[in-house]
Amino acid sequence: MLATVIHAARDIRVEEVPDPALSAGSDAIVRVVAACVCGSDLWPYRGVTPTNEPHRIGHEFVGVVEAVGPDVRRVREGDFVIAPFYVCDNTCVNCANGVSTSCLNGSWWGSDDRLGGFADGGQGERVRVPLADGTLAVVPGPVADDEIPGLLTLSDVMGTGHHAAVSAGVGPGDTVAVVGDGAVGLCAIIAAKRLGATTIIAMSRHPQRQALAREFGATHIVEERGDEGVARVQELTGGIGADRVLECVGTRESMDQAIRSARPGGMVGYVGVPNGGPELPVRPLFNRNVGVNGGVAPVRGYIEELLPDVRSGAIRPGLVFDLELPLAEAAEAYAAMDERRATKVLLRP
Amino acid sequence: MLATVIHAARDIRVEEVPDPALSAGSDAIVRVVAACVCGSDLWPYRGVTPTNEPHRIGHEFVGVVEAVGPDVRRVREGDFVIAPFYVCDNTCVNCANGVSTSCLNGSWWGSDDRLGGFADGGQGERVRVPLADGTLAVVPGPVADDEIPGLLTLSDVMGTGHHAAVSAGVGPGDTVAVVGDGAVGLCAIIAAKRLGATTIIAMSRHPQRQALAREFGATHIVEERGDEGVARVQELTGGIGADRVLECVGTRESMDQAIRSARPGGMVGYVGVPNGGPELPVRPLFNRNVGVNGGVAPVRGYIEELLPDVRSGAIRPGLVFDLELPLAEAAEAYAAMDERRATKVLLRP
Repeated sequence: MLATVIHAARDIRVEEVPDPALSAGSDAIVRVVAACVCGSDLWPYRGVTPTNEPHRIGHEFVGVVEAVGPDVRRVREGDFVIAPFYVCDNTCVNCANGVSTSCLNGSWWGSDDRLGGFADGGQGERVRVPLADGTLAVVPGPVADDEIPGLLTLSDVMGTGHHAAVSAGVGPGDTVAVVGDGAVGLCAIIAAKRLGATTIIAMSRHPQRQALAREFGATHIVEERGDEGVARVQELTGGIGADRVLECVGTRESMDQAIRSARPGGMVGYVGVPNGGPELPVRPLFNRNVGVNGGVAPVRGYIEELLPDVRSGAIRPGLVFDLELPLAEAAEAYAAMDERRATKVLLRP
Repeated sequence: MLATVIHAARDIRVEEVPDPALSAGSDAIVRVVAACVCGSDLWPYRGVTPTNEPHRIGHEFVGVVEAVGPDVRRVREGDFVIAPFYVCDNTCVNCANGVSTSCLNGSWWGSDDRLGGFADGGQGERVRVPLADGTLAVVPGPVADDEIPGLLTLSDVMGTGHHAAVSAGVGPGDTVAVVGDGAVGLCAIIAAKRLGATTIIAMSRHPQRQALAREFGATHIVEERGDEGVARVQELTGGIGADRVLECVGTRESMDQAIRSARPGGMVGYVGVPNGGPELPVRPLFNRNVGVNGGVAPVRGYIEELLPDVRSGAIRPGLVFDLELPLAEAAEAYAAMDERRATKVLLRP
């Protein structure tokens, strides 16, 4: 089958690789219907994280189950499924606590799992899915083609934006500032509105993304950054700052922006993968009682909650996809996202 | 009148100072019935923070109102009152948001307030109290002498321990670890139990404090620290860590202990004043979805909630006082706490 392999920075190839096969009894084989490129895939693409040897890449996909192992009970051949960006059993104590990204039996796409060996990356024609009953969320009934972008966001970005909002404790009537206008930041706006925020300040300098932010529920756009950005948020919030701030980038600058944009007693929900590991300055947090909560988003646990709203059209996270390409053109998908010609690219095998 | 003045590290004197007088219309004069020494008072005492010139010290006191300014409506002459460790109007937007330590009109004992000039320190015979209607909590009815230690804890340590528990989101059935066995850590145990925690792990090496921790509700004592302390907490929590961790010290080591003792998805509530400003390591927080929340405890807002339980004896935070001295012996009070001969010292003018 064909799958995407990263060989080095800026060297993405779609190559012939071995077909996946059932290995552990809890496995499924899924034919990928759509996959996509994540902002975090750009790290190895840009050489921020090194690629020491060629390896599979991609961790967001939806598809149809082609085969299941003998121990699989819940997922069936023919089911349309959403895979979160990681493998989990969905039953261990950490999964039960809502933190399936810390699953005691979990693993990651494109590397070995604990039972059956190699689990394929998501940007390919097929994937061996470990712990299929835990990992995969089944989408009931027939799935229309135009539903696919929205469903695919439940694999990562919509659930991740939701996690930022949940971690920050967004509730009815809140004033929320969102730092970051990538796919996750845009989905965080959807999530904040869905959870009842009435004032949503999107920090964005990009005209198309500003338009989408407004469509998703942003009530204000702030183009300024740094001290000026903080001052604008203060202006919009009666001089005190936002109740909740959703940090969806992961740099020291964006975290600083987020912390300083929160009001005393406010909470920063953060999901931007810390790029280079910025530390959090404890004094400004302590003095103003600003909390910080979040992390690797446990999106598996959010799929069932968000799915009805995605299917009904109550929320439309699929709009974050502004480019669709065949899998064979994965290299162009990476380039388009790297150069910010596209917010998020959908790949069809 | 007599009041405590710090002249330099380890140089505490009780001296004659000017009597306080009503200055702003919102002032009250309070005759101090009892005051105490705070762990944070030991910083200048030990020279950790410099004392550039002699100044008043002390920020926890209870007393009787002797006079009120013409704008004071709620507090009356003769009222027995509890002063939190700061001045606040209890009405501004930050106070309304539950963060009265960020009051827009707030100030601190022993320094100038925004309206009336100098507000005395708490370790003295009398105090000019700015914004009396906001700052002071009235204790209704006659106050028995043996109630005083308990009431005095509402000035700081009991409210601060409660804030750690509230910030960490302690709720029924939780497993809670408490880092720090000073007066605040011990009060945090009381707070965790009061909020429904069923397993409370106190990290302490001090036999008398361990005994008090157990009396307050600790179900387990962990004497180990560092890696061994983390391992013991893991052992006691089915291998995953505590749901909530209350950090009541403020050093890099204690914060590290707290973060590593939390389970994935857990929350650290911290109230230990960051000593020297340790930064929080974002990667271990992010990877395990451990949140950090807390800060300068807004104890004013907790007094009315905790007061009935203190008066009924349902909680007995007054037991943290293990030494009582006349105000004239304030220097010995500091020495006893510095040398850990006393957990907390009550001073009577």
